[in-house]
Amino acid sequence: MIVSDLSIIGLGLIGGSIALDARTHGLAGHITAWDRDADTLRSAAESLAIDRAAGSLEEACAGAELIILAVPVAAAVPLAMEIHRRSSSGTVITDVGSTKESITAAMDDLPAGRADFVGGHPIAGIENSGFGAARKGLFSGAPFIITATEKTSRAAASLVEKFWTGLGCSIHHMPADEHDRIFALVSHLPHLVAYALVNSVLSGIGDPGTVGRFAGGGFRDFVRIAASDPVMWRDISLDNSSRILDALNIMEKEISAIKKALQSGDGEALHDIYKRARELKKST
Amino acid sequence: MIVSDLSIIGLGLIGGSIALDARTHGLAGHITAWDRDADTLRSAAESLAIDRAAGSLEEACAGAELIILAVPVAAAVPLAMEIHRRSSSGTVITDVGSTKESITAAMDDLPAGRADFVGGHPIAGIENSGFGAARKGLFSGAPFIITATEKTSRAAASLVEKFWTGLGCSIHHMPADEHDRIFALVSHLPHLVAYALVNSVLSGIGDPGTVGRFAGGGFRDFVRIAASDPVMWRDISLDNSSRILDALNIMEKEISAIKKALQSGDGEALHDIYKRARELKKST
Repeated sequence: MIVSDLSIIGLGLIGGSIALDARTHGLAGHITAWDRDADTLRSAAESLAIDRAAGSLEEACAGAELIILAVPVAAAVPLAMEIHRRSSSGTVITDVGSTKESITAAMDDLPAGRADFVGGHPIAGIENSGFGAARKGLFSGAPFIITATEKTSRAAASLVEKFWTGLGCSIHHMPADEHDRIFALVSHLPHLVAYALVNSVLSGIGDPGTVGRFAGGGFRDFVRIAASDPVMWRDISLDNSSRILDALNIMEKEISAIKKALQSGDGEALHDIYKRARELKKST
Repeated sequence: MIVSDLSIIGLGLIGGSIALDARTHGLAGHITAWDRDADTLRSAAESLAIDRAAGSLEEACAGAELIILAVPVAAAVPLAMEIHRRSSSGTVITDVGSTKESITAAMDDLPAGRADFVGGHPIAGIENSGFGAARKGLFSGAPFIITATEKTSRAAASLVEKFWTGLGCSIHHMPADEHDRIFALVSHLPHLVAYALVNSVLSGIGDPGTVGRFAGGGFRDFVRIAASDPVMWRDISLDNSSRILDALNIMEKEISAIKKALQSGDGEALHDIYKRARELKKST
């Protein structure tokens, strides 16, 4: 057991899967949860994934040793600040958001003497969302990134590290700005490109039936990625917009290089571009 | 049995899988094959996927009722013309290439009185290639497109249709130029975008180890697609370059729309763009 009282705020795919695995691995003595959707909260309580469905956010956080915020990026900062305001020393608040700089900076600015905040991000999303998509083992073998700052309590960071290690994650530490730069490229860019590609094919062909009929292996993967929650990706996009713009600029340059080679019929240049991309497979 | 003597030229993923399934479904009395790689040809003969490994292209084609060209796009036109020159009336030549306009036009220009040509394309590629990747059932449920012209013999097209129906395909007919326009969008564009995206991430991050360590669900699919054979995609790109350029121009516009929304912090526009892409999932 790593914490006696665990509180999970938000029971979507991530929050629900945390509850299931915290139970399976015996990481918490008692699991309380709160979700703004009453049906989700009732489902979780009935499935025995949690011990107690709290009646309010305040009730969910009272007495908790570790509070995990598993809510959409846009909701995380105001919620974290509200929980912090009512908290007392000894409580640890952590999150699971896909962007880290804004929440880390906001929490660093708060007065000391209350709960400690530790920014976190498990690399374990799938296209589906909601408590219905939650599953055991989602975090097994996944990287978990901690974005501690100079102000972060070492004890608090250590507790978060132990908890996620218990869920099966491998822990990585990096500054929040580095996290957001890396994930603009390895995660945010691919999702936005999938949206742009699917829209391109739809607008180029016109008839969705024709697109569906002749969609082969590669394109189907894009379609699946582009089925990701548009609200979640809107919020991530807005929160990390400057780094995502940098990433899109790089993407435009790569597309230009392919166009240039196509326009001049330069097979060697095309082969070099395609071969370079293939090299990464060895590292993944 | 649909043909007594089947000849397969090229024993890669597609040619090898045709041999395996033609045998399984009893579509041919006798299967002869030829591949420019002697080891591949020997492997196929030893695996009993074919009845006879021909000593030369000429030997492979002599007496065949149906000759299937399963070679890379760039090799298909000269090979089809060479086979046609030596052929006699009553033989049907067909292909499996990912581009159809160039081979269809070249074959239409040849003198009558010899073999009939029927352009074909099974939508069943995977990222792996070579005879080692060949497998039974690859074409089961896959669309097969026939690109007949005014000059195409109806009897020949009917034979090709029966053969691929026997392999489990659903048959679609369309002109070669329409095929190349549709596939520039649903197949060629996604592959080129995957190459460009993987290269963008590599150049933006620099260290392939970091990319590999933090690559999540969506990006891993791109990496897999970008591991497709660079020679094959170079040849497809060159053969269908003008339509692929049109597709890349559409893609650039879609990326610009996302950039514009990001620059102005327009969450509603981003949400609309992402939501539109999601709609396609219902059709695929």
